[in-house]
Amino acid sequence: MKRFKLIVAYDGTNYNGFAKQPNATTIQGTLDVAIAKIVQHEVRTLGAGRTDRGVHAFAQCCVFDSDTKIPADRLAKAINSQLPADISVKSVEEVSEDFHPRFGAKRKTYRYQILNAKIRDPFLYKYALLYPYELDVERMQEAANEMIGEHDFACFCAAGSTVKDTVRIIYSIDVKKEGDLVSIDVCGNGFLYNMVRIIIGTLLDVNENKITKDSIKTIIESKNRELAGPTVPPQGLTMLNIVYN
Amino acid sequence: MKRFKLIVAYDGTNYNGFAKQPNATTIQGTLDVAIAKIVQHEVRTLGAGRTDRGVHAFAQCCVFDSDTKIPADRLAKAINSQLPADISVKSVEEVSEDFHPRFGAKRKTYRYQILNAKIRDPFLYKYALLYPYELDVERMQEAANEMIGEHDFACFCAAGSTVKDTVRIIYSIDVKKEGDLVSIDVCGNGFLYNMVRIIIGTLLDVNENKITKDSIKTIIESKNRELAGPTVPPQGLTMLNIVYN
Repeated sequence: MKRFKLIVAYDGTNYNGFAKQPNATTIQGTLDVAIAKIVQHEVRTLGAGRTDRGVHAFAQCCVFDSDTKIPADRLAKAINSQLPADISVKSVEEVSEDFHPRFGAKRKTYRYQILNAKIRDPFLYKYALLYPYELDVERMQEAANEMIGEHDFACFCAAGSTVKDTVRIIYSIDVKKEGDLVSIDVCGNGFLYNMVRIIIGTLLDVNENKITKDSIKTIIESKNRELAGPTVPPQGLTMLNIVYN
Repeated sequence: MKRFKLIVAYDGTNYNGFAKQPNATTIQGTLDVAIAKIVQHEVRTLGAGRTDRGVHAFAQCCVFDSDTKIPADRLAKAINSQLPADISVKSVEEVSEDFHPRFGAKRKTYRYQILNAKIRDPFLYKYALLYPYELDVERMQEAANEMIGEHDFACFCAAGSTVKDTVRIIYSIDVKKEGDLVSIDVCGNGFLYNMVRIIIGTLLDVNENKITKDSIKTIIESKNRELAGPTVPPQGLTMLNIVYN
């Protein structure tokens, strides 16, 4: 058996998230069916991370195992021929059998987009949160800087998550504004459930003076989800890239 | 009666073009219904130009007449509350009764986008033509320059059009490449049916050596649609803006 690594981009708007589920259209389920048609046997892809309903990816990383004789460099086109237009396999390469897209990931970067405008945009409503209030990029960046480093991020983990170890490293958070569009790139060694969306909600609370930037450290130390900001909607979120060793 | 001028943006993917038709969902028909709900009487909007099925607009210009007491600066939000998310009224202002969005237009600019890549992109398939071959921007720009000026553009008019005067002025055509994305902005005093899409098809034929850039002038002089390039698909096309006196 050979292991194939796929870089997959998708518009998550019409899917119930990445992870395969019975009776729901998911990215993983759609990929499995398309790949199976090409390699002529059942496959079960393994992804680097789940993305929720409505969340997008520029470069999700997946693997599947197969003894297909189709060379890796021809697989992307073949699989794409079986996929809907809102999912695209960007590249396929053969990797060693022990390569694991989740456990092998060293850094992941997510981007959250905010349209800072009073009037909605028909091209961005699926890809950005519409935020009509004044937005102080500098203040949000300063608050974000307080989150950098290795911390127990229980305060940024959705209630009900069963993960035990809530310590993660955030390497960087970059808040940028270009025209009306604000993008916040969050890079870390891994993320808790809804962590990026809660971080963005917390930064927007800082913008609205509901949270001061000086209290960020206290909120993290509290490990109390209720002290952090709200979970912003999914459509602004995109899995940007994943770095492996 | 007052005349209101609307700047409207829309994603044309799910519409049968701009112009109202019975038994088909169109931009104009959808606008008319939404505005009628707000001003409480039937309206018939008038647009600056028709856009075909699948063509988008950043700034289509429309007018409607009403004696509504709602001030212009509150109409955009009110009308948007009655519109689907893929159509957005960006602004509304009162104009003189004799303002005509089509006859008053001095310059119109359309953009055509080409994704110059071997693999499709799930975020661009509705907004750009996928073109997997090598693309020589400079050569296309040189051919485009041969089209500038006032000419009888019958060669770039879709067969079957009933327009009699096929003389138009093209002020500029700008071919630009940023990463994988090529955008071609065409600015003129008006356009014949499918004219921009045939211009782009002709420039791609130049790129593929099917037409030499030196023969552009001869093609225009011939007034023969069959000598020009094909009509490229609609989804890459966006009405960018319209300038009035």
